[in-house]
Amino acid sequence: MENTTLLLNIMWTMLGAILVYFMQAGFALVETGFTRAKNAGNICMKNMMDFVLGSLFFFLLGFPLMFGNNIGGILGGSGFFNPYSLADSDGLFNGLPIAVFMIFHTVFCATAATIVSGAMAERTKFSSYLIYSACISVLVYPITGHWIWGGGWLADIGFHDFAGSTAVHMVGGVCALVGAKIVGPRIGKYNEDGTPNAIPGHNIPLGVLGVFILWFGWFGFNCGSTTAATTTLGDIAMTTNLAAAASTLVTLLFTWKRYGKPDVSMTLNGSLAGLVAITAGCDVVTPYEAIIIGAIAGLVVVLAIEFIDKVIKIDDPVGAVGVHGCCGLLGTLLTGVFGEGVSFLPQLIGVTAVLVYAAVMAFIIFTVIKKVFGLRVSDQEQIDGLDMHEHGMSAYNGFRMDK
Amino acid sequence: MENTTLLLNIMWTMLGAILVYFMQAGFALVETGFTRAKNAGNICMKNMMDFVLGSLFFFLLGFPLMFGNNIGGILGGSGFFNPYSLADSDGLFNGLPIAVFMIFHTVFCATAATIVSGAMAERTKFSSYLIYSACISVLVYPITGHWIWGGGWLADIGFHDFAGSTAVHMVGGVCALVGAKIVGPRIGKYNEDGTPNAIPGHNIPLGVLGVFILWFGWFGFNCGSTTAATTTLGDIAMTTNLAAAASTLVTLLFTWKRYGKPDVSMTLNGSLAGLVAITAGCDVVTPYEAIIIGAIAGLVVVLAIEFIDKVIKIDDPVGAVGVHGCCGLLGTLLTGVFGEGVSFLPQLIGVTAVLVYAAVMAFIIFTVIKKVFGLRVSDQEQIDGLDMHEHGMSAYNGFRMDK
Amino acid sequence: MENTTLLLNIMWTMLGAILVYFMQAGFALVETGFTRAKNAGNICMKNMMDFVLGSLFFFLLGFPLMFGNNIGGILGGSGFFNPYSLADSDGLFNGLPIAVFMIFHTVFCATAATIVSGAMAERTKFSSYLIYSACISVLVYPITGHWIWGGGWLADIGFHDFAGSTAVHMVGGVCALVGAKIVGPRIGKYNEDGTPNAIPGHNIPLGVLGVFILWFGWFGFNCGSTTAATTTLGDIAMTTNLAAAASTLVTLLFTWKRYGKPDVSMTLNGSLAGLVAITAGCDVVTPYEAIIIGAIAGLVVVLAIEFIDKVIKIDDPVGAVGVHGCCGLLGTLLTGVFGEGVSFLPQLIGVTAVLVYAAVMAFIIFTVIKKVFGLRVSDQEQIDGLDMHEHGMSAYNGFRMDK
Repeated sequence: MENTTLLLNIMWTMLGAILVYFMQAGFALVETGFTRAKNAGNICMKNMMDFVLGSLFFFLLGFPLMFGNNIGGILGGSGFFNPYSLADSDGLFNGLPIAVFMIFHTVFCATAATIVSGAMAERTKFSSYLIYSACISVLVYPITGHWIWGGGWLADIGFHDFAGSTAVHMVGGVCALVGAKIVGPRIGKYNEDGTPNAIPGHNIPLGVLGVFILWFGWFGFNCGSTTAATTTLGDIAMTTNLAAAASTLVTLLFTWKRYGKPDVSMTLNGSLAGLVAITAGCDVVTPYEAIIIGAIAGLVVVLAIEFIDKVIKIDDPVGAVGVHGCCGLLGTLLTGVFGEGVSFLPQLIGVTAVLVYAAVMAFIIFTVIKKVFGLRVSDQEQIDGLDMHEHGMSAYNGFRMDK
Repeated sequence: MENTTLLLNIMWTMLGAILVYFMQAGFALVETGFTRAKNAGNICMKNMMDFVLGSLFFFLLGFPLMFGNNIGGILGGSGFFNPYSLADSDGLFNGLPIAVFMIFHTVFCATAATIVSGAMAERTKFSSYLIYSACISVLVYPITGHWIWGGGWLADIGFHDFAGSTAVHMVGGVCALVGAKIVGPRIGKYNEDGTPNAIPGHNIPLGVLGVFILWFGWFGFNCGSTTAATTTLGDIAMTTNLAAAASTLVTLLFTWKRYGKPDVSMTLNGSLAGLVAITAGCDVVTPYEAIIIGAIAGLVVVLAIEFIDKVIKIDDPVGAVGVHGCCGLLGTLLTGVFGEGVSFLPQLIGVTAVLVYAAVMAFIIFTVIKKVFGLRVSDQEQIDGLDMHEHGMSAYNGFRMDK
Repeated sequence: MENTTLLLNIMWTMLGAILVYFMQAGFALVETGFTRAKNAGNICMKNMMDFVLGSLFFFLLGFPLMFGNNIGGILGGSGFFNPYSLADSDGLFNGLPIAVFMIFHTVFCATAATIVSGAMAERTKFSSYLIYSACISVLVYPITGHWIWGGGWLADIGFHDFAGSTAVHMVGGVCALVGAKIVGPRIGKYNEDGTPNAIPGHNIPLGVLGVFILWFGWFGFNCGSTTAATTTLGDIAMTTNLAAAASTLVTLLFTWKRYGKPDVSMTLNGSLAGLVAITAGCDVVTPYEAIIIGAIAGLVVVLAIEFIDKVIKIDDPVGAVGVHGCCGLLGTLLTGVFGEGVSFLPQLIGVTAVLVYAAVMAFIIFTVIKKVFGLRVSDQEQIDGLDMHEHGMSAYNGFRMDK
């Protein structure tokens, strides 16, 4: 019987991991579709390499930092280069075979990393991006992940982030904000008077497919975060789905009212906003509370993206900061408002601490990379497209393109 | 032990729901790929909003109408705005935690809704489409769904529709037929003498990907409809797959013979035709019977699409009526011919009743929408494309397009 | 309890089968994206028909040849046209309901077939390709499959190919090599002095999506090959993922060094190379051994693709021979080097025997098809594109194309 329960939990966690893996494809398509054709191959490669480097570095260093023996609630400190050694005598870790637990957390780590590529798209050097990508998988995500999920100090004070509104999305979003600021805006994004220009994406159907894939994978992300077969899986799926539906609808209606037409790319970001926001509390809110959380996220994401674009003038081509950073923070706080058995104060402390840590680390990492290797491609490269200069290729051979 | 069985059933039903969710992406791509580039963003958004509105309205009203306390075999009448209240004291409904059962049926409902967008593509007003989409999720699908799956009168007389050839596909196909008729053909579709012109799709690889995604999701649709882990899952997968393979091959050969060349888009519709047709009886037919059902569907879909296009002259850009309406009806009837323990008469009564109800309701809904809000965009909007006028965007910025 | 174990195994195997089905979409996109727009519809159809014909012929003939009563270790000889008759009195075969076992092996068979279409893309007659596709599903794959997985002579001598580096990928790759040789290179591929020209693909984002889908499906391919819920599923997922990550990184760095820039399409082939190579031994190697196997595959695939292109001058548009043929062989041999409890000699004997059989059979099949039906389209068809001549369609209506 014990064995049956274990096998049930293994199967469910494996399914979750596999679905979350597929979110990498979703991110790649969203980021590709909503940027320009001349950079399509480059952004795809950045997404692919995020997962590749995340997989390798999380195995070697990240998992030990996140789940190794707890050092003062701050970080894990054992299992480096040999993470399987952290398993107990039955080969288990947190009640699962350690490899099952590890593949699940590997795909989560890679998700945080890949959020950044969109915000820094179309002007970041490929080589420098790879260095950043390895750094987040070691120096940023596992540390705050340890605080939240690895038995660290935020877990101790009752911080609740079920599937990673903060641990994954806000961390990615904060790094994205810092990275986009440091690398600077794309040529042509801001006029001399500081007003922004829209730079529309080149393949909206691919972007839409990306959103569908992300929503699909999110069922693995949120429901899989039980890492066990439970009777609550349906409840989590329902809150996840209703929040996403509500946020999509609210964004659609809000942009319709605000811009005169229902905005396609903003509405798609609205879908993601609701998914991000519900992730922290999907296990502790009711369906109606999920709808409320989603609806709020659907409004906030529009205002956040506008604020970043127009007020603080940071060029985030796909709205990643608004979606993942702002709605990750929002959803974590709202879990403190609505979530059964969750207090607001730990939520506030948690997002503040994680935000500060991620921002400081991202600032250090990107600044060092900028000084040592350079972070930005030349203007000529940017004008010609990163595909041509960075990879010697064109993503759409045979199609006639403008410019 | 009881608990283990419950968890097994939960996991299987959840997997089914997740896979069926992903069919939304398949529909979006098929409909996008097989229509024109200038409407690509709009059709994507219609598909997205079908799911969004379906999720919200099915939760609030649809589920109670479909599964609330049975009123005279006609509709459910309890649980409105509080569907979880329909669960028993253990939180179960039909042997599953109610949220598991509900997420599974939510994605089914949204599938029926989204079939319509393809048939009405390229000339239907976005706002009016949203109103229709909410209506089908409340006024049409849950009612006939109650008759078939909610303990209603068709269930009582032995009507067999295992996974929804009638409940999902024919309902969607009938609404699609009525909607396409009422909104009228696209400009340029019919010549003055009434002969149709082909209006080819703009992105066949995306359409093909859509068909692969639908076939993939269909394993969740059909095998998941056990809503339980059973020893028959493989049998259902085999009949589903063989029917789809047979229909694809027959359509390929039939179009080759009929048109001189193997037709790509028709063959892809052939794949879907077999999947739709086997859905009703996938649990009660043998592999060879599945091949026969698929082969018949592969022929019928070609003739049905031609009939709709050339004889009754209804403009269905993607062939949704032929695929979902005709082959849904066909498959349900053939289940009465081949299915073990299934009689023909209830099948005939069932499809007739559902067809009439769906057609009448769709007629009322679309007529009211047309009178009150208008259903069709202006000719100028249609010529310029719905993306530009409805959403102020272009789906393929940077690509040079004809016209 | 027995029943619970059976249901767990059924669910896991079904999930594996469904994920492997989806790899068909991955192959279609990789092959489409990395070839030219004028042949996009044709290559999509070839992929679709590979699965269709594979499903039908494997049911009728292939499964009996692979798993019917063993005749001298060489082939199965019972169950033709009635494969369910091979089940025992409980309906089981190899411990699973026979239909579950069969759907799993059906999707594997179709994977082998579909590898070939990429190597022969852009100049192979559609009708002749269909004949080949049926032949591999009957005359090639099930025979060597019987040797390895059907209780045949390779199983007896201890040949270890857990999920099919040899049984699936090398078989497909060898047939691809022979087919590409016999059909000859595309017009313009080789100059008069024998030097090759690069013919770049037309839709890199679709190709990237294909690779993501394949990686996603590979978790079903490798982890599903337990055909049982076991505690080792995570270990298999980890070795699979680490090998793929390592190979991708190595290919990226190696092409960067070798060509001056990180090569996009080669790196994507690097991902697939690692996946192919780890498939044989994913259950018997450690994570570090998986990284080593992946890293070797990431080097070998580059050299293999160059060798085929430049030295033996066989035109393989997508690198299928290098990826599936060479890395399938490589991975099987390396399993003999690293795999716990696996000897090298049986591995060497196995790959040699399968290589010879597949090559001889492919030679016979393609030669007969060439003589009887012709294998290659006319030069004019090739120049105009196969979509136009073979199917009377264009994949990208509305887009302005070069030429």
